[in-house]
Amino acid sequence: MKISELSRTTGVPVASIKYFRRQGLLPAGRATAATLAEYGDEHVQRVRLIKALTTLGGLSIAATRDVLAAVDGAEGPDGTLKAISYALPVPVAQAPVEDADQEAEAESAAAADVADLVAAMDWRVAAASPHVQGLRAALRELRRLDAGYQPDRLVAYAELAHAVAGLDLERAAGFDDSPALAEQAVIVLALSGPVLELLRRLAQEDRVRRRMELVGDGDDLL
Amino acid sequence: MKISELSRTTGVPVASIKYFRRQGLLPAGRATAATLAEYGDEHVQRVRLIKALTTLGGLSIAATRDVLAAVDGAEGPDGTLKAISYALPVPVAQAPVEDADQEAEAESAAAADVADLVAAMDWRVAAASPHVQGLRAALRELRRLDAGYQPDRLVAYAELAHAVAGLDLERAAGFDDSPALAEQAVIVLALSGPVLELLRRLAQEDRVRRRMELVGDGDDLL
Repeated sequence: MKISELSRTTGVPVASIKYFRRQGLLPAGRATAATLAEYGDEHVQRVRLIKALTTLGGLSIAATRDVLAAVDGAEGPDGTLKAISYALPVPVAQAPVEDADQEAEAESAAAADVADLVAAMDWRVAAASPHVQGLRAALRELRRLDAGYQPDRLVAYAELAHAVAGLDLERAAGFDDSPALAEQAVIVLALSGPVLELLRRLAQEDRVRRRMELVGDGDDLL
Repeated sequence: MKISELSRTTGVPVASIKYFRRQGLLPAGRATAATLAEYGDEHVQRVRLIKALTTLGGLSIAATRDVLAAVDGAEGPDGTLKAISYALPVPVAQAPVEDADQEAEAESAAAADVADLVAAMDWRVAAASPHVQGLRAALRELRRLDAGYQPDRLVAYAELAHAVAGLDLERAAGFDDSPALAEQAVIVLALSGPVLELLRRLAQEDRVRRRMELVGDGDDLL
């Protein structure tokens, strides 16, 4: 198909497809003339995946490139899952470095919190895992806010997160190492995060409304 | 305290504090001279909260302003929770509008998925809730990717999300409507999302490593 049909099929504007090409996210089509290229089903799938990662997943172009490189380069289904997981952006912005002593203290307290939690959960995770670094940064910020932060409360969250990861991996269980199935693993790993967050907010809304029951607020319910 | 001390105490540069002032995120200090102002503990708390929302929470300045306005304007503890929840940015970027017919079909299929899920969970949520809109957008994207999407699998995720929301609200249970406690509600609602996401990724990593056990990959574990 021509680029115009690729655009119609995926709902992604031609200019965006060209941009994905220039950014190295999308392989070249088969050249049929100096200025024409022929695209196939693999391009349709890849354009849809790029769109999903950048919209639903909220990934930057650079992060999308890392994730796609992991998809294309990984060995075996579990290797794919790990490579993709490590390529995902960490959802905590790095806070600017402050007073060095205070910083070092907060840093080591957060590191101890993470180590305690991983031990309590008996989780096998690499010391160099980006998720370990991310969780340390998150807990350091929570500690700083000093708002009744209780690290031992994290275990209950971790247990629910473990159950969610079980559902994630169950969905990934049938995957083999073909590129198309690796792309499905991306969807599970990268895109179920926003869905889970939205479900959590709906559940919070439900619980708050039930507490407000006697008051009521006049909103039309779904 | 002077602005220099407010900066030292919070670890936020003077230039950033001045920026927060200009953006209307931080109330004025008490003027002590034409170019000097005196700041108090409430400014320390507010600066820390702004920093947490913009770094750990990943919120834009505009979203931070909305959340703080909800904190300052809400009535009663449950009203505060709802106002803050609605002010949080929806974690799904809006995809560009495409072919109108296809769009309408995808839209109504996603709306039906959300309605079915809310009915299955017996959740009380407003038809106009931003989280309902967000979930529709997310499911529309998942449907488009056509990667073994099964809406009935969402119920298992929703049940775990409901349990997480229970932990969230338990943490918020002791809150009354004083501004300081409303700020703690922000932390629970806005900032536990990134922590949960990191815990989910660590749990995924653990589960993948256990599946890879016989292979091993030479990483040092935490």
